Amino acid sequence: MQLTLVKIGGHVLDKQDTLDDFLSQFADVDGYKILVHGGGKKASAISSEMGIPPNIIDGRRITDEATLEIVTMVYGGLINKNLVAKLLSLGCNAAGISGADGNLLPAHKRSHPTIDFGWVGDIDGFNPGILDGLLANIITPVVAPLTHDGNGHLLNTNADTIASSIATGLARRYAITLVYCFEQKGLLRDIDRPNDVITGIKEHEIQPLIDSGVISGGMIPKVHNIRESLKNGIKRVILCHALDLKKVLSDPDSGTGTIFTL
Amino acid sequence: MQLTLVKIGGHVLDKQDTLDDFLSQFADVDGYKILVHGGGKKASAISSEMGIPPNIIDGRRITDEATLEIVTMVYGGLINKNLVAKLLSLGCNAAGISGADGNLLPAHKRSHPTIDFGWVGDIDGFNPGILDGLLANIITPVVAPLTHDGNGHLLNTNADTIASSIATGLARRYAITLVYCFEQKGLLRDIDRPNDVITGIKEHEIQPLIDSGVISGGMIPKVHNIRESLKNGIKRVILCHALDLKKVLSDPDSGTGTIFTL
Repeated sequence: MQLTLVKIGGHVLDKQDTLDDFLSQFADVDGYKILVHGGGKKASAISSEMGIPPNIIDGRRITDEATLEIVTMVYGGLINKNLVAKLLSLGCNAAGISGADGNLLPAHKRSHPTIDFGWVGDIDGFNPGILDGLLANIITPVVAPLTHDGNGHLLNTNADTIASSIATGLARRYAITLVYCFEQKGLLRDIDRPNDVITGIKEHEIQPLIDSGVISGGMIPKVHNIRESLKNGIKRVILCHALDLKKVLSDPDSGTGTIFTL
Repeated sequence: MQLTLVKIGGHVLDKQDTLDDFLSQFADVDGYKILVHGGGKKASAISSEMGIPPNIIDGRRITDEATLEIVTMVYGGLINKNLVAKLLSLGCNAAGISGADGNLLPAHKRSHPTIDFGWVGDIDGFNPGILDGLLANIITPVVAPLTHDGNGHLLNTNADTIASSIATGLARRYAITLVYCFEQKGLLRDIDRPNDVITGIKEHEIQPLIDSGVISGGMIPKVHNIRESLKNGIKRVILCHALDLKKVLSDPDSGTGTIFTL
């Protein structure tokens, strides 16, 4: 069975027009599908309104108790439920969950030799029951980037990792197309030329692109997740602009976006 | 099949010790079960922190756009996901949803001849698919008091009504025990005597108790929901203290709580 798993990044969530257009395209995708969403600027905005300063140590944002409360509210509540309401209005029967619900993605608090990241989760496993239950009833899961530690505590968890963990977890039972949608047209040869997209990359070509600096900064962890997905049974991962979703799915050979294969 | 549907009110959510004890009792309930939760004071506290004043017209709290955003965050995110994490830590495989998810409880914005309540939902229907999907996978739904209007907008919705709507919707397929847990020991003969509980009431005895003033204030809408449940196929509705859940379920004839029957 075919299943399309789409991850939508934070930047797109912050632009209502783009988001609405993206959601229309997602609602029109045929067959089984899952949407994983990131955070966006709303959490920072709410933090500021509540007078909670960002807790940044050595240049890294730390999920302290107050920040966890904010992301639980914003990712798990505000963003997740509004995506669901919008999809329902577009005729897509959606349900909002997180990586904690139904123990979908058991996790543990990240431990690091020098940095205490706070309530950040690293994923340990995968329990498909909740997705099976929803998909069997023709309901599209919309997944917020939260997990839990098994001891009653929620954990802030990277949405790209949530998406690749679900994709690889389901790969034995579904033919999965994994699509990372964001604000660029794909993997760029040069960050200053937004239309100069590398249209196809084999897994073994990734490391040289990192070594040469073509893949850098925030793209490195994203590409790391893509590599993990390819190594764990996902045959094709697409990285594209949110508004190119329909195009990349309907015409994979159009040269739109970047297609990663083994 | 037996199904226990428990609604937990806002006051209990505000007391962590009581809440933890209640959740332990709920986690131990055998068989199919569903938890519906209310709001609590957290939404007001977050509103204050964000500098959003309560919008009260003619003594009624109005769900304006800013308030809806708060309740979506607090009910749908903060409270819902923390209940789920806690239940998971107690060995109860829970999943947090709302009345919007999977189009569980289609609703419309309340219209009133003189008062604009804002984004408050009145329920129009019931789609069991999401509950079927979760229960079939031995996952306990935890339901936040939000619905949607079909046009992409979320709606703040009374949790008692959510509970009775789900109960009556499932009544054809399950033998349902509906339990409203709150901070009192049941329906009191006299509000000043917290141990003077009316242990059993028939549906036809309710109206005289309203007329005589025994049932008054906030108990009237609560009892209205209980009546509706009885008229729509629920054979027994229990109103009890949150910490008496185990007792009322294990020994229904113990004289604990108030048992409503047709």
